[in-house]
Amino acid sequence: MRPSGRKLDQMRKVSFERGFSKHAEGSCLVKFGDTHVLCTASVEEKPPAWLRNSGKGWVTAEYGMLPRSTGERMRREATSGKQGGRTQEIQRLIGRSLRAVVSLEALGERQITVDCDVLQADGGTRTAAITGGWIALHDCLKWMESRNMLKVEKVLKDHVAAISCGIFASQPVIDLDYLEDSSAETDANFVMTGKGGIVEIQGTAEGEPFSEEELLTLMGLAKNGIAELVALQKQAIA
Amino acid sequence: MRPSGRKLDQMRKVSFERGFSKHAEGSCLVKFGDTHVLCTASVEEKPPAWLRNSGKGWVTAEYGMLPRSTGERMRREATSGKQGGRTQEIQRLIGRSLRAVVSLEALGERQITVDCDVLQADGGTRTAAITGGWIALHDCLKWMESRNMLKVEKVLKDHVAAISCGIFASQPVIDLDYLEDSSAETDANFVMTGKGGIVEIQGTAEGEPFSEEELLTLMGLAKNGIAELVALQKQAIA
Amino acid sequence: MRPSGRKLDQMRKVSFERGFSKHAEGSCLVKFGDTHVLCTASVEEKPPAWLRNSGKGWVTAEYGMLPRSTGERMRREATSGKQGGRTQEIQRLIGRSLRAVVSLEALGERQITVDCDVLQADGGTRTAAITGGWIALHDCLKWMESRNMLKVEKVLKDHVAAISCGIFASQPVIDLDYLEDSSAETDANFVMTGKGGIVEIQGTAEGEPFSEEELLTLMGLAKNGIAELVALQKQAIA
Amino acid sequence: MRPSGRKLDQMRKVSFERGFSKHAEGSCLVKFGDTHVLCTASVEEKPPAWLRNSGKGWVTAEYGMLPRSTGERMRREATSGKQGGRTQEIQRLIGRSLRAVVSLEALGERQITVDCDVLQADGGTRTAAITGGWIALHDCLKWMESRNMLKVEKVLKDHVAAISCGIFASQPVIDLDYLEDSSAETDANFVMTGKGGIVEIQGTAEGEPFSEEELLTLMGLAKNGIAELVALQKQAIA
Amino acid sequence: MRPSGRKLDQMRKVSFERGFSKHAEGSCLVKFGDTHVLCTASVEEKPPAWLRNSGKGWVTAEYGMLPRSTGERMRREATSGKQGGRTQEIQRLIGRSLRAVVSLEALGERQITVDCDVLQADGGTRTAAITGGWIALHDCLKWMESRNMLKVEKVLKDHVAAISCGIFASQPVIDLDYLEDSSAETDANFVMTGKGGIVEIQGTAEGEPFSEEELLTLMGLAKNGIAELVALQKQAIA
Amino acid sequence: MRPSGRKLDQMRKVSFERGFSKHAEGSCLVKFGDTHVLCTASVEEKPPAWLRNSGKGWVTAEYGMLPRSTGERMRREATSGKQGGRTQEIQRLIGRSLRAVVSLEALGERQITVDCDVLQADGGTRTAAITGGWIALHDCLKWMESRNMLKVEKVLKDHVAAISCGIFASQPVIDLDYLEDSSAETDANFVMTGKGGIVEIQGTAEGEPFSEEELLTLMGLAKNGIAELVALQKQAIA
Repeated sequence: MRPSGRKLDQMRKVSFERGFSKHAEGSCLVKFGDTHVLCTASVEEKPPAWLRNSGKGWVTAEYGMLPRSTGERMRREATSGKQGGRTQEIQRLIGRSLRAVVSLEALGERQITVDCDVLQADGGTRTAAITGGWIALHDCLKWMESRNMLKVEKVLKDHVAAISCGIFASQPVIDLDYLEDSSAETDANFVMTGKGGIVEIQGTAEGEPFSEEELLTLMGLAKNGIAELVALQKQAIA
Repeated sequence: MRPSGRKLDQMRKVSFERGFSKHAEGSCLVKFGDTHVLCTASVEEKPPAWLRNSGKGWVTAEYGMLPRSTGERMRREATSGKQGGRTQEIQRLIGRSLRAVVSLEALGERQITVDCDVLQADGGTRTAAITGGWIALHDCLKWMESRNMLKVEKVLKDHVAAISCGIFASQPVIDLDYLEDSSAETDANFVMTGKGGIVEIQGTAEGEPFSEEELLTLMGLAKNGIAELVALQKQAIA
Repeated sequence: MRPSGRKLDQMRKVSFERGFSKHAEGSCLVKFGDTHVLCTASVEEKPPAWLRNSGKGWVTAEYGMLPRSTGERMRREATSGKQGGRTQEIQRLIGRSLRAVVSLEALGERQITVDCDVLQADGGTRTAAITGGWIALHDCLKWMESRNMLKVEKVLKDHVAAISCGIFASQPVIDLDYLEDSSAETDANFVMTGKGGIVEIQGTAEGEPFSEEELLTLMGLAKNGIAELVALQKQAIA
Repeated sequence: MRPSGRKLDQMRKVSFERGFSKHAEGSCLVKFGDTHVLCTASVEEKPPAWLRNSGKGWVTAEYGMLPRSTGERMRREATSGKQGGRTQEIQRLIGRSLRAVVSLEALGERQITVDCDVLQADGGTRTAAITGGWIALHDCLKWMESRNMLKVEKVLKDHVAAISCGIFASQPVIDLDYLEDSSAETDANFVMTGKGGIVEIQGTAEGEPFSEEELLTLMGLAKNGIAELVALQKQAIA
Repeated sequence: MRPSGRKLDQMRKVSFERGFSKHAEGSCLVKFGDTHVLCTASVEEKPPAWLRNSGKGWVTAEYGMLPRSTGERMRREATSGKQGGRTQEIQRLIGRSLRAVVSLEALGERQITVDCDVLQADGGTRTAAITGGWIALHDCLKWMESRNMLKVEKVLKDHVAAISCGIFASQPVIDLDYLEDSSAETDANFVMTGKGGIVEIQGTAEGEPFSEEELLTLMGLAKNGIAELVALQKQAIA
Repeated sequence: MRPSGRKLDQMRKVSFERGFSKHAEGSCLVKFGDTHVLCTASVEEKPPAWLRNSGKGWVTAEYGMLPRSTGERMRREATSGKQGGRTQEIQRLIGRSLRAVVSLEALGERQITVDCDVLQADGGTRTAAITGGWIALHDCLKWMESRNMLKVEKVLKDHVAAISCGIFASQPVIDLDYLEDSSAETDANFVMTGKGGIVEIQGTAEGEPFSEEELLTLMGLAKNGIAELVALQKQAIA
């Protein structure tokens, strides 16, 4: 039995609130149950230095947690003077995931920064951030299209979404919340496209090593979950 | 004429959404028009080092802006490696303002940190933060009272709220939004208690120096505005 | 009775030692009693990046305290790796105060940096820094005028000086020294021009909130004190 | 055809030079072809603060690259003032991988730090670091056993080793060198134990998303490679 | 001919102004011509952590330059976020030099920090700092003696003073000013005790290597100069 | 008797392993007994900013110690966020020493960075770094010559090498190892050219001050030692 009473293959309620921020070119408050992440996409009319005169643009991501998004207040990274290792790992993952479905040539010499700020955390912040970040990126590109800056369908090649799966109390489960996450034996994050291609897979044994069979079971759960997330993304932008 | 069409002495619509965060002991999403600040109060069962064995507690505040809370994306302070001067100035002001209505002896050897994170900015973030921060602090103390840790009425001596006033297009106006703020000739922030005592006043000539008469006019506007904010706080916690 | 035996409206002995530094274009060792601040003005033939090609220049200030300028040795900010919040607040105030009496257009595309370093502190370092910083700035402009770079009377529109007032032992007093400052109920800093315009006012209740009447009393003290400081500035540069 | 002329399933020549450092309790210079990593294990007779009085110890890792370990000189992280995101990601991976085969209870309240410093890089530094780090850790535990501090077989539960596999020029290959790594379509790192359990898997699509079949092919290659590495570890410590 | 018109073996005018700072336990404004360094000695009733329960104390030094102590304004180290290499080198030298004449056992478990802040620089700041720092240290110990904390003659074993010598325009000269220092062929700093023992010698060829004979000539100059400085120290504390 | 059994004037076994790194333009693993330093020379086709359009190039050095190069593990400078004072002092010394034998005009507008990383420390790391750094620099220049970028004999004016001497157990000794270094009464480092010119001398009394005679004795030892090191350099590059 899962602490939340969910079935093994049942994700939390997922919602997208587009246009949460009035300033950003694209924005979305994504909720995976009690995990709430504000994603904003900001366009800048110049690419990073190393892409100048290449004809290509860049999509990058930054990630942060509000100090009291968590059960215990965390120290603010701005006061500790640097982003921690976990923060950097996550924002690098979000950036790679979004770039996997973007044509940087069609984007042109510009940079889009997707900021993912966790307002409330209950496990799965990185998967929510990727899934909601895609909406913010999409809406940013739409905003650009409406100003004749580009064609969305040339830049955005596919959907991308992410989900965590893990082995909790010896059972394979999807979309772990904080309680499950903190005692799972194995934890894996999957990032996939709308067509089902794998963009990123990260599996970690927290306790005992896991087997190939277990990995495949988790991947089976993830495929279904991500298909569902992509369907919800489609509804949201319809 | 004000850009928003408001009257000279008309504040923006103010609202408080209590309990916005499920983890914090007290929390409030405060809105002054399009300025949205998430305030959370976190209690820690030990005071700062310099108050150990003094019998007294401490209330402090931290302030931050999400990178795209503003019209143009700002650099994240966690990546620039330090909090800027403006951030520090504001969080010191919020902390002093809240401490002005708290009995640190009655609080006992504990620390309450009020985090004020700007989700969306349109002028007046520091005054919204103080006004909403008081709600978060109040609710945190209520939470502590319900656990028999203290009596709210002994700790919290009064309300505190804040408003900006300024001279815009040669007219004294209250609660400046970003458009007004960025071209005001004079800008003043007032922090007052429920009983009308002044906790803090900060007036700055952005262009020409101002006169004592102008300062008194702005203070008159502020008194009315803060009385209104205190009334709204009372409604919110009723 | 004040600890120093001064009358309520009596400032400490104020002196200016011009040309204290042989390298700086303008310099002044200002003393407000035992508070000694070395102010130097340095001109640089290029403005900050955001003013390039604007035709305008900039005046900025930096503030520091020597580690043993105070009763207890403080940690050197260069070893702690950053300027603290109080330092940044003060140097921003000094910069705004000096810019209030400068025509940045007439200055042209240059930057003047006024460094205010506290050699010895006994309360009121920021007001001494503004008052002495004006002398250093004036002398720097004179130096530039003597090289036909500008006309002082076009750049420097007025005097500016500053004084603190506060309520100490229930009495309104001017120019608080450290003993008074550390137990004052209310503390206010006033920055005014030679013509009596207000540039900045910052009033803070350290204990109980204060009333409008008290603020006006303090402002009355400040007006007289600043008029006296401006007279002393005039003597000094005569 | 691989640039090195290796067969698709052929790893580079792997060697371990134990006792490379005279000071460390355990040390090993590991070479995967032209990738050379110096691993040292240092024991400290106190655990990290959060494990005090828990009866448990800790194993952690740090990773660094010499500035000219790479084709172009990189900036030294000590001068840039922080470890980059990639460095932190890798050292966290090494630490998790080694802890997966250690009984922290049997280790007792101590900390072992495994430093992995890349003397020369040619792709696969993290997999070499894990594989060689295990040797350094083993030798450190042997050193402790010889001083009657613990029993190695109680602390060290299994071997752990790692290898990268990827899709290069549309072919699945093992142990990518720098040339292959920088143009691979898919890149995956596998960490497994001597018994064949999976400790960590990280797969990333550098270009097009990859399929489950491709992942399984890479895993097949990895299993054989890691079995071979474990055999080499056994020889080395024999 | 030296730019200043001094003879080859003629030092600049040296003066000591004791008690320059009212707060410090010992203080001295030392001048070597236009080089002015404010030295303060601060005592703290606990030694550094690594000396606890050793029965010994510590003497350390910190060095800084005011931003406009130099011909061109330098960036403030507090804003650049760290002390530069030159600063650290100099403060380490000052600390070693002063400790050479102190009995740390007789001092007992306390720390004295000698801050040397350059108000105006014209070459030779480190030698002035050592020579004036000794006066500040002496006066701090006297202050302690007057409170029955120790006996000066048991703690302070001798005088220490320092001077620079160099080869300028092919001639050996003593006490180089900035003009000489910036074009000297060889530059050497000597630190010696009152009894003539050598505490530190640092000689550097700025252009061509120098010979042993040249070094001995410079040392001869230094011996005389330091004897003179020690005589001046004796006068100053008389 | 020296702990190692060496004679007073006997250096440790010195060896140079050229080409240790496959990427660097020049590289050398230098060993002075158990002190092992990896030196790499990297050329960059642009000089530092302050030398642009001067026609001159630059040679600089950086120094680091692996965390477990020492008897006790040291904190990694990349995690403490800055290079310590000792590190900066040493790398500045290495840079000055190498520049003393280079014609920066003949080098042209380029920069060569010599990285000296201590793999294992047993006293004398800075002298080993200078001596081995010269080999790396020489080989880098040879590499450039083979590409017709310059003529080695025009750029490299002489050999440079370094050795430490000190007074240990009241006896003058050469090339102190860690045991000797940590209890020496006097410690001096000498840097000299192939022709016997002195480039740098740094002598420090660790306990009692030393005399001119003692310094001359140490210099005599150093001259012989450096002559031997230069002979070994010549063999190595032959």
